[in-house]
Amino acid sequence: MPDLPQYLEKEASRFEEELCELLRIPSVSADSNCRDDMHRAAGWLHERFQALGLASEIVKTKGHPLVYAESPPVPGKPTVLVYGHYDVQPADPLDEWDTAPFEPAVRDGNVYARGATDDKGQLLTHVNSVEAWLATRGPLPLQLKFLIEGEEEIGSENLEVFLRNESKRLACDVVVISDTSQFGEGCPAITYGLRGIAYFELRVSGPSQDLHSGVFGGSVMNPINALTQIMSRLIDESGRIQVPGFYDDVVPLTERERAEFASLPFDEAAFCSQIGVTALAGEAGYSTLERRWARPTFDLHGIWGGYQGEGGKTVLPCRAGAKFSFRLVPQQDPHRIAAALRPFLESLCPPGIRMELIEMHGAPGALVSLESPFMSAAATAVERGFGQRPVFIREGGSIPIVTRFKEVLGVDTLLLGWGLEDDHAHGPNEKFSLADFHCGIRSSAALWEELSKIAP
Amino acid sequence: MPDLPQYLEKEASRFEEELCELLRIPSVSADSNCRDDMHRAAGWLHERFQALGLASEIVKTKGHPLVYAESPPVPGKPTVLVYGHYDVQPADPLDEWDTAPFEPAVRDGNVYARGATDDKGQLLTHVNSVEAWLATRGPLPLQLKFLIEGEEEIGSENLEVFLRNESKRLACDVVVISDTSQFGEGCPAITYGLRGIAYFELRVSGPSQDLHSGVFGGSVMNPINALTQIMSRLIDESGRIQVPGFYDDVVPLTERERAEFASLPFDEAAFCSQIGVTALAGEAGYSTLERRWARPTFDLHGIWGGYQGEGGKTVLPCRAGAKFSFRLVPQQDPHRIAAALRPFLESLCPPGIRMELIEMHGAPGALVSLESPFMSAAATAVERGFGQRPVFIREGGSIPIVTRFKEVLGVDTLLLGWGLEDDHAHGPNEKFSLADFHCGIRSSAALWEELSKIAP
Repeated sequence: MPDLPQYLEKEASRFEEELCELLRIPSVSADSNCRDDMHRAAGWLHERFQALGLASEIVKTKGHPLVYAESPPVPGKPTVLVYGHYDVQPADPLDEWDTAPFEPAVRDGNVYARGATDDKGQLLTHVNSVEAWLATRGPLPLQLKFLIEGEEEIGSENLEVFLRNESKRLACDVVVISDTSQFGEGCPAITYGLRGIAYFELRVSGPSQDLHSGVFGGSVMNPINALTQIMSRLIDESGRIQVPGFYDDVVPLTERERAEFASLPFDEAAFCSQIGVTALAGEAGYSTLERRWARPTFDLHGIWGGYQGEGGKTVLPCRAGAKFSFRLVPQQDPHRIAAALRPFLESLCPPGIRMELIEMHGAPGALVSLESPFMSAAATAVERGFGQRPVFIREGGSIPIVTRFKEVLGVDTLLLGWGLEDDHAHGPNEKFSLADFHCGIRSSAALWEELSKIAP
Repeated sequence: MPDLPQYLEKEASRFEEELCELLRIPSVSADSNCRDDMHRAAGWLHERFQALGLASEIVKTKGHPLVYAESPPVPGKPTVLVYGHYDVQPADPLDEWDTAPFEPAVRDGNVYARGATDDKGQLLTHVNSVEAWLATRGPLPLQLKFLIEGEEEIGSENLEVFLRNESKRLACDVVVISDTSQFGEGCPAITYGLRGIAYFELRVSGPSQDLHSGVFGGSVMNPINALTQIMSRLIDESGRIQVPGFYDDVVPLTERERAEFASLPFDEAAFCSQIGVTALAGEAGYSTLERRWARPTFDLHGIWGGYQGEGGKTVLPCRAGAKFSFRLVPQQDPHRIAAALRPFLESLCPPGIRMELIEMHGAPGALVSLESPFMSAAATAVERGFGQRPVFIREGGSIPIVTRFKEVLGVDTLLLGWGLEDDHAHGPNEKFSLADFHCGIRSSAALWEELSKIAP
């Protein structure tokens, strides 16, 4: 009987073939023509889980089915919930793909296909590690629960319902998700922090109808003038947000975090050229990575008002509006931010202008302590899988499901990403490194071992 | 032989019938289906001038024809150019008219039809006064030149050409235009000042493509953020424009003007309710009329950037833009303003943002001295025609042709408006008071007499 590493080596090409099998199913959740394919993909996973001896179930929802599978409880050991998704983004524009999106092709050590990195390739690492464990070591050393949905790319609406209704069944000590990226090639990473968001729309209105700017200009507040004034006062020149109390709950970066970020091989010049700017900007006193990952921001996402067509129109428009959000960092509460924002905006709103503030959506950030035993176990596991100690990074965006797991199940999530930033998730020629696929499987197997050492 | 006033009384209903005749011609310059009607309207005026014994000509242009007619020179007397336009705005929305726009209907002493006040009714007052003069007093006491175009509502492009090519033929001492309004009912007015304009578009761009605001927010200047900051700094809270040197050439209001404006029956509460605002705004230290007529302004006419659709999109957009203008007062030069604006905007443009400033169009303001003998003559004539001394007002908008007459012919324009603000020029149910029509004819006849007393 081979040991686990030998088994993985022996089965490597079958794992790759199976990945390609799953990638061939065009499970595009946004495309109603793919409904059968969604069922095929869910069925494929269900059979895979059953073959491993897990108690597996295809859960029907109002939308695409989800697949739930679990191994038996292991007394005195933690329970781990593995989340993933089998749905993929639409593949268009098709003519920008070098090979067809649903005909996986291997080139230069990468498999090219829609869903390769996001998330089929990444999620299968955890399935394959279970197979290897069971084949070489016997029963799993802890209880695993797999929750694989088919609507991640379209908003996870029905997962939400399942999560609320089945929170007892989903009870666990920690969640594991592999749907993010390494810091760079050869630099595996654990994402331990996410930003939250508070998203708003502000509508301002003045006169009851559009006016002639010659006849009326100078006598009445112009709603676009007012909007630019209000928006410009939400942030100062040093990048500090001016909403009263905005920073009250911000968890400051620790010295360890700042040192960790500073040691990362981040090339500012390459970053500038990647996004096509000649200079970076943001809150004074913080590095670029700190500003992207761990400091709150204010960004306007859209603005409109008056005449946007060709040429000139001398209108004094009756209304204008803007969409904007604050990215929040852990401990900032989107509701508290909204509550502080409203009177602040009202205080900035000039006479003659009415304002309407719409709270669009909000989510708190997430942060897993670097001192948590789960985090240490994950770091060890990744090091064992990749042969390289992972770096600890944060991510500037939100992953809503992480927030929901915290809220509903009360647990932290370990974001162990095997992808690379240039994997073109959501774009043409999506790919996933097969070497990273196998490192991921090894890391996953090591993870079960490391996590089983922790008393739940 | 009746005297002139008796003649006007006797012919009053024929003048009204003739006005209705002209109003029945749907001379919509913007509508290519109306091409024949444009020729019919021009022909109607041409025949009318010929019938009066004037040397009249239909001048073909690349667009709609214009009509030029003149009476013989009168040595030692001024030459007066009367400008008007026979084209009208489109009539739609048709279902908002109580009676058909090209079937003139008289109700409550008003004639309702498209073009009634703008400008057929007003321009005919000067034609009818000539008829009355010739019929009762013999040759005109000064030389009159009539320049009636058919493209006022679509930009006067071909009048521009005629003006440049025929400036000698158009030589005159003063221009008379009746295409504006009285200050209110029973309050005739002479408009002696117009504002100019300097109109711009600013485009700002940052990253080379739209970015994810979670991943990149905080590291790069957001073009909409930048745009609101730049725009908000063009004007301060007291309504003072911040472009360096902006006020250098502003002609301050005289004590006489401020007293004249202050004495006008302007009802601020009624004005607020007319435009639907609860508070007025503008430059501190000036009354509402002063701000509308005689102080420069800064108004945004349009703004755009990022996502304007339903719901939220967490985009950090790569570009944004705005259209805006400064209304200028006499002596401010739009070119000097543009020259001062550019470096000021550049100084406000944050690192990481590129800006492009487009100078769209500019026109200086116009001001006729209240001490000018032409102005005194006009005031006397209006008082004789309306039985009421006119007030001296300004207008916040621009009338480009007034600027062009000043530039090309070197002469001032007397803006003697017989209309009312609620005449619905450009809107449904356009009307013109027949009483004002006749007051206008009487004023016009008096004007020829008063102007003839001035040595050219």
